[in-house]
Amino acid sequence: MKNTARYAVGIDFGGTFVKLALVDDAGTIHARRKIPTADLPDQAAWLDAMAQGVSELAAESPENPPMTLAGVGIGVPGFVDHRRGFIHDLPNVPGWTGVPLASRMEDRVQLPVMVDNDVNAMATGECIHGAGRAYQHVVFLTLGTGVGGALLLHNRIYRGARSMAGEIGHMTIDLHGIQTPTGQGGLEQYVGNQRIVERALRYLDQGRPSLLDTLCHGDRTAIGPQMIEQAAEQGDELSIAVYDEVADCLAAGLSSVAYLLQPQAFIIGGGVGQSGPILYGPLRKHLRERLSPFFADYIVIKKASLGNDAGVIGAATLMLQD
Amino acid sequence: MKNTARYAVGIDFGGTFVKLALVDDAGTIHARRKIPTADLPDQAAWLDAMAQGVSELAAESPENPPMTLAGVGIGVPGFVDHRRGFIHDLPNVPGWTGVPLASRMEDRVQLPVMVDNDVNAMATGECIHGAGRAYQHVVFLTLGTGVGGALLLHNRIYRGARSMAGEIGHMTIDLHGIQTPTGQGGLEQYVGNQRIVERALRYLDQGRPSLLDTLCHGDRTAIGPQMIEQAAEQGDELSIAVYDEVADCLAAGLSSVAYLLQPQAFIIGGGVGQSGPILYGPLRKHLRERLSPFFADYIVIKKASLGNDAGVIGAATLMLQD
Repeated sequence: MKNTARYAVGIDFGGTFVKLALVDDAGTIHARRKIPTADLPDQAAWLDAMAQGVSELAAESPENPPMTLAGVGIGVPGFVDHRRGFIHDLPNVPGWTGVPLASRMEDRVQLPVMVDNDVNAMATGECIHGAGRAYQHVVFLTLGTGVGGALLLHNRIYRGARSMAGEIGHMTIDLHGIQTPTGQGGLEQYVGNQRIVERALRYLDQGRPSLLDTLCHGDRTAIGPQMIEQAAEQGDELSIAVYDEVADCLAAGLSSVAYLLQPQAFIIGGGVGQSGPILYGPLRKHLRERLSPFFADYIVIKKASLGNDAGVIGAATLMLQD
Repeated sequence: MKNTARYAVGIDFGGTFVKLALVDDAGTIHARRKIPTADLPDQAAWLDAMAQGVSELAAESPENPPMTLAGVGIGVPGFVDHRRGFIHDLPNVPGWTGVPLASRMEDRVQLPVMVDNDVNAMATGECIHGAGRAYQHVVFLTLGTGVGGALLLHNRIYRGARSMAGEIGHMTIDLHGIQTPTGQGGLEQYVGNQRIVERALRYLDQGRPSLLDTLCHGDRTAIGPQMIEQAAEQGDELSIAVYDEVADCLAAGLSSVAYLLQPQAFIIGGGVGQSGPILYGPLRKHLRERLSPFFADYIVIKKASLGNDAGVIGAATLMLQD
């Protein structure tokens, strides 16, 4: 048994906040920082603030003599070249196109820095220390505005030829389906937040009665996935039907993933991933319908368990695994 | 540079013939045996004949002093537990359900024996010594009566939780599509041999003119994928349309695989995989339409290059890799 814990700082790089945490190799958080990005005028200020956060956390050693940091792991929301620590583009955070983030941070903190996309970071957190910790082969997905994914094979993130593997949201579930720049009939077009709401509105427009009209106080623009879930939990047929359809579309995508990779578990995070039995009940049923028993009998679907900490824990873990 | 070659016997275990070859670690075949299975009365006779073949090949050393064999690799057409060397079932070869093949062969040959399914063996042959040898991340598929698949990630077969990963033929391309015991809208239901012929017959039944009626001399039961390819090569519009549709269905499946795994290459074997530009032209075009350029620009589609030797070379290579 090892008697010396190892530590890293994990950074969850978001458009509104940058969150930092001092994390050990058991996935425990010992200290935190949260930096609002609105105050940061430019990229240099942003990098300086992150470096300052790292050095503050380094001073909060839970051990005596103080631990030394193994390094810093950063999860960013966009396209990165993991090997070079290079950001290609962050679609929702302006000013970070073509940035060698790892080397710019290494210059400031004098520690090894690893950069990955935020879904890989969350997946690592969940699969090593969270809901997926009992498994070696896990497919992690986030359900929310879009559908993100990451693959943990043999306990390691599998990144593919150019660091972009895991794009579950673009997998085809309907070859003649909705066309987008990423293809035709991609899963995300059927189960994203907006699509869930659109399904409900379509039924309402057809004049189907629903508790939703009461819950939204006549303002249908206020209807969101959570309100639909709430109505479904109260037995609203329309809302139950919407979640059943969404679950079946998701099952179609997950059946393809299961046949290709035969993971032990699917771990589901993101806003819609936090839904209750109204999503997971029909999802399990439809996935079973869509798989041979050889596959269906040995696959587990679990909800992510680390909540908003998955990103910082996972980013630190990526560094500590390396 | 290494100066000592290593050798193994690779066995391609088929229902009609069992093929054996002495293979070195560069993928070169030095000697062969081919055993017709019709003469073998039972499982014991079959095992004895394979052991006899191994010992004959062991005596044909290309080196002096003679090489020693590293072991025997066997690829079988069906469900196996690779780790235990155990055959669950061979759907097309009666009498091999629940057989501990590796241990029964080890008793006879006094060498390590490794068992895998035949698609994994072929994939290993093609990806290490054939069309895929320049790549570390390759998806191999066989197109024929059915659609088989295997994944080579980081130069190793990825088998998933229970040795069954790679079932590309069962991936969903149409969530409301054809129902089978393995799910709904599986790729194999759209691009298998029989489906290609059915598409052509449907158009012929609609009265569409086609060169096929000449080529088959009025006997439409004689129409097969090769005859349709031949007609397409001669400019037959109906046959060109059939291959275009098949290629688009295949592209839908491969786009899902590409988004999930981002391999460097697809290597395609099997009977239909040996088609010419009539398949590969539209396949490349439709795959590009169905992928973002980030994925489409870096993915190669190649025809398998080892032909009927892929199985024995791959089975031996699996042993030598271990």
